[in-house]
Amino acid sequence: MKEQAAASARVSERLAQFLCALRWEDVPSAVRHEAKRSLMNYFATGLGGCRDAAVATASAVLGRFAGSATATVVGRCERSDLLNAAFLNAMSANVFDFDDTHVRTVIHPTAPVAPALFALAQTSPMSGKQLLLAFVLGVETECRVGNAVSPGHYQRGWHITSTCGVFGAAAAAGKALSLNAERMKWALGNASAQASGLVETLGSMAKSISVGNAARNGLVAALLAERDFFGPDQPLEGVRGFLRVTGENPDFSCITGGLGEQWELLSNTYKPYPCGVVLNPVIEACLALSMKPELRIDEIDRIEITGHPLLRERTDRPQARTGREAQVSAQHAVAVALARGRAGLAEFSDASVADPALRSLGSRVCFADDASYAVESARVTVRMGAGEAELSWFVDRARGSTDRPLTDADLENKLKDLAQYGKSGCDPEPLIAAIWALDNADDAGALMPLAAGRG
Amino acid sequence: MKEQAAASARVSERLAQFLCALRWEDVPSAVRHEAKRSLMNYFATGLGGCRDAAVATASAVLGRFAGSATATVVGRCERSDLLNAAFLNAMSANVFDFDDTHVRTVIHPTAPVAPALFALAQTSPMSGKQLLLAFVLGVETECRVGNAVSPGHYQRGWHITSTCGVFGAAAAAGKALSLNAERMKWALGNASAQASGLVETLGSMAKSISVGNAARNGLVAALLAERDFFGPDQPLEGVRGFLRVTGENPDFSCITGGLGEQWELLSNTYKPYPCGVVLNPVIEACLALSMKPELRIDEIDRIEITGHPLLRERTDRPQARTGREAQVSAQHAVAVALARGRAGLAEFSDASVADPALRSLGSRVCFADDASYAVESARVTVRMGAGEAELSWFVDRARGSTDRPLTDADLENKLKDLAQYGKSGCDPEPLIAAIWALDNADDAGALMPLAAGRG
Repeated sequence: MKEQAAASARVSERLAQFLCALRWEDVPSAVRHEAKRSLMNYFATGLGGCRDAAVATASAVLGRFAGSATATVVGRCERSDLLNAAFLNAMSANVFDFDDTHVRTVIHPTAPVAPALFALAQTSPMSGKQLLLAFVLGVETECRVGNAVSPGHYQRGWHITSTCGVFGAAAAAGKALSLNAERMKWALGNASAQASGLVETLGSMAKSISVGNAARNGLVAALLAERDFFGPDQPLEGVRGFLRVTGENPDFSCITGGLGEQWELLSNTYKPYPCGVVLNPVIEACLALSMKPELRIDEIDRIEITGHPLLRERTDRPQARTGREAQVSAQHAVAVALARGRAGLAEFSDASVADPALRSLGSRVCFADDASYAVESARVTVRMGAGEAELSWFVDRARGSTDRPLTDADLENKLKDLAQYGKSGCDPEPLIAAIWALDNADDAGALMPLAAGRG
Repeated sequence: MKEQAAASARVSERLAQFLCALRWEDVPSAVRHEAKRSLMNYFATGLGGCRDAAVATASAVLGRFAGSATATVVGRCERSDLLNAAFLNAMSANVFDFDDTHVRTVIHPTAPVAPALFALAQTSPMSGKQLLLAFVLGVETECRVGNAVSPGHYQRGWHITSTCGVFGAAAAAGKALSLNAERMKWALGNASAQASGLVETLGSMAKSISVGNAARNGLVAALLAERDFFGPDQPLEGVRGFLRVTGENPDFSCITGGLGEQWELLSNTYKPYPCGVVLNPVIEACLALSMKPELRIDEIDRIEITGHPLLRERTDRPQARTGREAQVSAQHAVAVALARGRAGLAEFSDASVADPALRSLGSRVCFADDASYAVESARVTVRMGAGEAELSWFVDRARGSTDRPLTDADLENKLKDLAQYGKSGCDPEPLIAAIWALDNADDAGALMPLAAGRG
C-alpha cells in the first residue's frame, strides 16, 4: 500500500512537468523517425477512410454548425473550423481500424493526437519539430494512461483509443500551445471530464464519434486550460479520478516510470491489411499460397488454419454481412486473399462480402487450435479434393508485428494504395515527401493542404 | 438470471419505441406542470450563472470556432451556433449546483436536456407542447438510466448528471426531431459513445465541460441519427454497453418498468439555497434565528447543529477557501445565514468566504450527530456567552425537500433573485410569463430571446 501510495503521488503533476520540460533535442532519433512513420500511416488511413459514409454524414451534419473554414479535412474538398476538422480527421483515420496499434494496450495512438495538432498548426504557426515533439508527447501520454489501466479497462468495455486518446490530444495540444505545468495539468483535467467511448459501439458508426471526440475534445481541453479554465488537481490519480474509476487495479507507476527513457512510440505497429491483427499471419500465408501455380481455387474443398486459440476466438465469423464484420472474419479473409491475391480495403468492402463465390470458399475454412503457436504465427493448409496433395504455408512472424514491422517503403505504398482507394484526388507524392521532411519544415501547417481532396 | 435476462431484453429498443409513441395527451397534468416548474428553475439558475468565469471563458474560447449565430446564450449578449449554445447554457444552469435534483439519483435533470431543446427550437420550429413533451421524455430517459446504475455509478466516481444527461438530451432532441424508433435507438447509441464526466472534477471548472457536453453531444447524437448515422443495437443493455460498463449491478428493469405510468419528473426537487441539499434544514433554521431580536451576533460563543451523521460527513468543512467550497461547508453556511439573514449566491461567493467576521463565527460551529434525525431535519442551537440562555430552532422537513417543495411563487422569486444576481440585464417578468404559457405557445423558440442578456 505504501509503495502504491508513493507511485500514485501526484502523477498528473509529474507528468505535466515532464511534458512541459521536454525538448526536441531530448527525443532519440529512433523515436523521431517513428513519429514520421506514424504520421505516414495516419495520412494513409485518413485518405482511405475520407469518403466513408460515417465521415461524409458527420461532415454534412456538423458542417451546418461549423465556424470559419481554417482547417483542412483530409481527403475532402470542404474545409472546416479547427475543432470540427480535428473531429472529422480522427474519424477518417480510424474508421476502418486500419490505423496504427500500440501493442500493449491495443490503442490506435495517432488518430486522436495528430488531427488535433495539424488543425492547430493551420492557425497557430509552429515548426515541424514543434509539431513532432508535441506528437511524440501526446502518444506517450495516451499510451501511458492506457498502460496504467490495462488490461481491465478494455475488458470491461472501454474503447481505449477514445478514452485514453483524449488525454493524448490534450497533452499534445498543450505542448504545442506551450502551456506551463499548471495549465498542462488542467488540460489533462479538462480531458478527464471528457473521456468516453464503449466497446459496444464497435461495428457501428457510433464508434467514430468517440474517436473524433477524443481529438476534438483534447484540443478543447488544452485551449480552455490556456485561458485559465482549471481542472482538478489530480485528474489521473485522484480517488474519483480517471485511473481508479475506469481501471480495475490501476498501476500508477505506468504514468511516470521511465519518462524520457522509455518511449511508447517505439512499440507502435502498422497494419498491412485492414483486419484484426490476429489475422495478419493467416492473410500473409493465403497471399503466398495464391501465387502458387498449383492452386486451383475452384477445386478447394477444405482450408485448415492452425494458430493460437485466440485466432479462432476472435475471428471465427462465418456469416459476416458487412465489410466491417469481414475485417474480423477469418472465413472472409482467407477466401478473399486466396481467390484475389489481395487484401486491401476493396477486399473488405460490403460488395466483396456479398460475393457468393467468396462465401462458398469461406465455408470450407476450419480451425485447428494450437496453443504452442504465437499470435504472430499461423499455418494455412489447402486441400483440393479428397486424396489430393495439400498446399501449405507457415508464417512465423507476420508482417506488421513488432518483430517484423512494415518498412518505410511499405508505409509509402500503403499511403499510395489508400489514396487511390479513397478517390480523394489527392496526389500522394508531395504529401509523402512533406511527411519525411516534416522535421525540417518551418511551417508544419503547410503540409495539410497537400492532404486535401481535389476535384 | 432468467429474470434478469428477461428484464434486460432489448431495453434500448423498448425505450426507443416508448419515446416515439408517447403523445402530449398521454402526459398527466401534474407532469406537465412539473416540466414548467423545472424550466422556471432552469432559467433561474442559468441567469444566475451566466457571468461565471467558467461560462465566460468557455464562451470566449469556443466562440472563436462557432458557426452561424442562430441560438441565444442565456443571460449573455452574444449568440452562437446551436451546438455551442446548448453547451454554454447547460454550463450556466449547473455551474453553481443550484439547479434541480432528482432525489433517487442526485442527477440534475434539466441542465443537459433543456438547452438542447431550446437551441433546436430556435432553428427547427416546434410548438411549446412539442418542446415540453420532448423535455418530459428526456428527463424520463436520463433518470431511468441513472436509476438503473445507482447507487454504484456515482459512488465509483461517475458524475451522473453528465454521464446520464447525454442520454436525456439525445432522447429529447430525437423526440423533437420526430425520429422513428430505429433512429431513436441510434440516437441513444450515439449518446452512449459520448457518456463522460468524473466526480473528481467537482469543485473545478472541468465539471462544467462534462455538463455542457451532455447537452451538446446529446443533440449531436440525435442529429446524426436523423441522417442514418447508426449506433449499436443494444447501447444500454449490451454486454459492453453503458449499463454494465458503468454500473456495478445494473437493474435493467429500471429502464422500461412502469413506462408511461411512473414519471421521474414528479420526484424532481428545487433548491432554495445554492448548497448541498443536506444543508437545507440547517440554513432554514439559521435564517429563522437571524430574525430573532434576542440574537446578538457579536456575542455568540457556540453554535451546535444537530442532525443526521451524513450532515457532518458531507459538510464539516471549517476552512472553505472559495465560494464553491463554501457551498458544502456547514461552518460558512451557518455563519452567513445567521449574520446576514440571507443565503443566496452572493452569500456563497469568494468575497463572502473571505470575510474574517464570518470565518470567526463559523469557527464556533460544532456538530452533534443524531441518527434519529432524517436528512431533511436539523436543529441549530446558539449560545451567547457561557451561562446565557440559548436560542434554538428545529426544522422538521426543510423547504425544497420532496415533502415540502418550493411553491410556484418561490420558483418565480428564485428566477427574479438570480436574474438580478447575474447582472444580465434580462427582464424576468416576460420570461416568467412565457414559461408558464409555454404549453400554449405556437413557437417554443420565441421564448429564448426573452432570456438573453442586454446592454
